[in-house]
Amino acid sequence: MNVDVVLHAGLLGSMDFKGKVVVVIDVLRATNVIIEGLTNGAKEFIPVETVKEALDYRAKDSKVLLGGERDGVLIGGFDLDNSPFSYTKDKVAGKTIVMTTTNGTQALRGVVSADKVFIASFRNIASVAQALLKYPELVIVCSGSEKRISLEDSLCAGALIYQLELYTSLFCSDIAIMLKSLYRSNAANLQNYLSAGEHYQFLAEMGLFEDLSFCLSLNKNTTVPVFDGTAVSK
Amino acid sequence: MNVDVVLHAGLLGSMDFKGKVVVVIDVLRATNVIIEGLTNGAKEFIPVETVKEALDYRAKDSKVLLGGERDGVLIGGFDLDNSPFSYTKDKVAGKTIVMTTTNGTQALRGVVSADKVFIASFRNIASVAQALLKYPELVIVCSGSEKRISLEDSLCAGALIYQLELYTSLFCSDIAIMLKSLYRSNAANLQNYLSAGEHYQFLAEMGLFEDLSFCLSLNKNTTVPVFDGTAVSK
Repeated sequence: MNVDVVLHAGLLGSMDFKGKVVVVIDVLRATNVIIEGLTNGAKEFIPVETVKEALDYRAKDSKVLLGGERDGVLIGGFDLDNSPFSYTKDKVAGKTIVMTTTNGTQALRGVVSADKVFIASFRNIASVAQALLKYPELVIVCSGSEKRISLEDSLCAGALIYQLELYTSLFCSDIAIMLKSLYRSNAANLQNYLSAGEHYQFLAEMGLFEDLSFCLSLNKNTTVPVFDGTAVSK
Repeated sequence: MNVDVVLHAGLLGSMDFKGKVVVVIDVLRATNVIIEGLTNGAKEFIPVETVKEALDYRAKDSKVLLGGERDGVLIGGFDLDNSPFSYTKDKVAGKTIVMTTTNGTQALRGVVSADKVFIASFRNIASVAQALLKYPELVIVCSGSEKRISLEDSLCAGALIYQLELYTSLFCSDIAIMLKSLYRSNAANLQNYLSAGEHYQFLAEMGLFEDLSFCLSLNKNTTVPVFDGTAVSK
């Protein structure tokens, strides 16, 4: 399997992913919200880039829930923020959730040309790795935080490459080599290593330690979300 | 000192480096050519982006030498290729060298707004670190290879950050944290680790093992080239 990594959603430009499978990562916290929401029975997540798109969506269909964040907090008029703990069974079971976050949804919109798109975080990394094994061309897309490359998304890409190499031979790009060895060197002390990250620090200052611990935990969930170009579902 | 890293010359866009000191790295092989050329008495290197610019330069001043590469080899009509071994005293002493390479010169042209620009490779890393200590805002720019992030430029940035941290307190961006720890984990086995890189492999297929060994050697040279926006000199 050939493996490459795009370190930030803003670097996607007009990249063509035809013939490739893509994994989108936004550890803090969009991809964890999606994994948790689908695990708790949500029907689907529809990623949109702007708050206005989300509100327009609900104007057409009053049954959808609106979720996401700007500057890390609930958007005015929305139902759900960007904490995976908000996506409980009683709130999301059977629901379509229209979601907009700063970077995660931008990453999803930027990879619609791919043959297949999976959603990963540390929590479902082993299951995502299993789902990828039959594909020859993989690109992992790290969403990043605002305009910045993020430590936790990069290390999660490294964790995925590390997992894949347990099962199959890889031909890694330079950046894939780097992230794999960076993960391997820091796996034993992962949460502590990731706590130096800028977006970790931002969320820690908001007191969101339970979210951080949850989002940075390894292999707690087997849900593998798939994005079909419009919606993300199981 | 605040430390950030740009992983590829193509990501510079219209970034403003006012108030910042920049270090440009192109390990294989432009920055090693510059360090070696200046060490051997070259007066200055003038980076230009295109072959045509270089030829136009010589049409105006027949005394300049033309150096650089396309696809790793000597450009037709040029005097010097992109091997540091070509920049010997007898060829370059006292000379102005107009230079164009695939990524290194693009990186230099992209950082002209910086307060100060230094040129680094593994060979002069400790001396560059010393020169940087009085500046509060550092951005390290890795040139990369063609359109790709490169293992050797990224690790060289990591080596510089690691060196700086021996002498002063750093506030590192996420990518700076990653490259520092990646360097630290692989320092004991550096050349072997870097041999997995795409551009290393490209040059190895051309048989350029002496160049590779030379360019990836640590702290063999104390020359610290400075780019003033037009020319690079000691």
